Amino acid sequence: MTIEALDFQAWMGAVQARMESALERLLPSPAVVPARLHEAMRYAVLEGGKRVRPLLTFAAGELVGAPEERLEIAAAAVEMIHAYSLVHDDMPCMDDDVLRRGKPTVHVEFDQATALLVGDALQSLAFQLLCEPELARSSAAQLEMVKALALASGSRGMAGGQAIDLESTGKPLTLPELELMHIFKTGALIRAAVVIGAQCGEALDGPATSHLDRYAKCVGLAFQVVDDVLDSDGSTATLGKTAGKDAMQGKATYVSAMGLSRAKELAEDLRRQAHAALEPFGERAARLAQLADFIVLRKF
Amino acid sequence: MTIEALDFQAWMGAVQARMESALERLLPSPAVVPARLHEAMRYAVLEGGKRVRPLLTFAAGELVGAPEERLEIAAAAVEMIHAYSLVHDDMPCMDDDVLRRGKPTVHVEFDQATALLVGDALQSLAFQLLCEPELARSSAAQLEMVKALALASGSRGMAGGQAIDLESTGKPLTLPELELMHIFKTGALIRAAVVIGAQCGEALDGPATSHLDRYAKCVGLAFQVVDDVLDSDGSTATLGKTAGKDAMQGKATYVSAMGLSRAKELAEDLRRQAHAALEPFGERAARLAQLADFIVLRKF
Repeated sequence: MTIEALDFQAWMGAVQARMESALERLLPSPAVVPARLHEAMRYAVLEGGKRVRPLLTFAAGELVGAPEERLEIAAAAVEMIHAYSLVHDDMPCMDDDVLRRGKPTVHVEFDQATALLVGDALQSLAFQLLCEPELARSSAAQLEMVKALALASGSRGMAGGQAIDLESTGKPLTLPELELMHIFKTGALIRAAVVIGAQCGEALDGPATSHLDRYAKCVGLAFQVVDDVLDSDGSTATLGKTAGKDAMQGKATYVSAMGLSRAKELAEDLRRQAHAALEPFGERAARLAQLADFIVLRKF
Repeated sequence: MTIEALDFQAWMGAVQARMESALERLLPSPAVVPARLHEAMRYAVLEGGKRVRPLLTFAAGELVGAPEERLEIAAAAVEMIHAYSLVHDDMPCMDDDVLRRGKPTVHVEFDQATALLVGDALQSLAFQLLCEPELARSSAAQLEMVKALALASGSRGMAGGQAIDLESTGKPLTLPELELMHIFKTGALIRAAVVIGAQCGEALDGPATSHLDRYAKCVGLAFQVVDDVLDSDGSTATLGKTAGKDAMQGKATYVSAMGLSRAKELAEDLRRQAHAALEPFGERAARLAQLADFIVLRKF
């Protein structure tokens, strides 16, 4: 039975298992020098999280008939970037968090210098993975993947969003400012996960690319809105990380900016927009549609 | 008058000036959000250093008739990686240095969180630059550039060398261990600077690629040996960074492992090997030969 034929929960489990084994294989072995760094890189990436970005890469890949052997490598690259950002964000000079996915954070389990280098090396590894042979339909398309990931990670992407977040702590942000921060901080990489998955298969035409990009933007923003809702609503046990921290640190969130009930409405509205963007694709986009539901409805 | 026709000192000055203006153009503007992050990225990269790696990229480019418009972008990518590594290495959890190139380090001038993000965003920017249109003779060659830079930066390159360096502080290293550390820590990126420059022009055949790689390895190792000699020999004023720090921190260096005079002999031997590797290229490799001399003879 192929992965495509599974129902959503089973499909998600199958992709997650496949990703765990791919990440295990693609991370450097702890038997290789520098052993402690490699051990810490594996600690940071393996057995962690719902793998939302890889799920999006696989779902986008189904839209374009991409081989799973390509998708797992492309998805691993995106996940390495995500994992590195968590390691650096948790460090004492940033969010100073001791718990992540229910385990001690990397700088607690190892040390700060190692955490810094783990993040740095995971970022390099992500780009190295995108150079694996024949990951896309052409070398030019593969370079587009590298570019998408670099833009999503940099100062006008994830790192930039983090910088805005730091600067804004304790200051009120307007809704457009908050939205820009989140488009950078989480939206860009989520969008890249979709774009990169789509590069693993048949080329999409211009309008189809736009539709897919609109879907990715809605899902990326929805993801953050839901995160804010969960942080305000949830408990440390269900989150696997310290709950209520945003409010304690005086961080601007969708909940602080618009209130809990309007933030939930916004997430629901973005989910509907994501579905609408997928309409032209019909059944081929079923997984992407299910993922939009999963991301928005995961815990409320 | 073209850059090629200049004598070595003038050529070096011309490449450095050209690089300064290229870096200025390729770094994000401080007028663009997030402004403080962009300002700090520029602070970390501009007006700094001898630009040894860009000089190597340009010199390798002359060997293969590469257009300077390509070389400056490729060299900027390598320099962004180098600059990011300095920012992270200077942080309190690593070398804890307050002075770099005669100026306060980034975490002193800005703050630690910003320094962390500056390094992260500069690494992304390096890979983004390598995706600029038509940087190499083909998209496949351009992907090779990305791969070379990723490998040189990662856990079996620069970041890995730094990890070995940290682990070994206060412990004696054997000469082979010391050599492995330096091949990772500085050698890999210097080698990548040469390889990437060569990808900007006509393809080299297999034997020529091997010769060039042998040159790059010798120069990369010589660079570190000379650095150790200068750190032990020089003053803070001539170095523009804190001198004698390696010894104070109990770090293994070529000087501590083999003594000052044998370390100088090793550097000289590597310089001769670098020249020998260039022989098959004749006059086309004149700049690379001059650079080997410059790197080894710079201050003793």
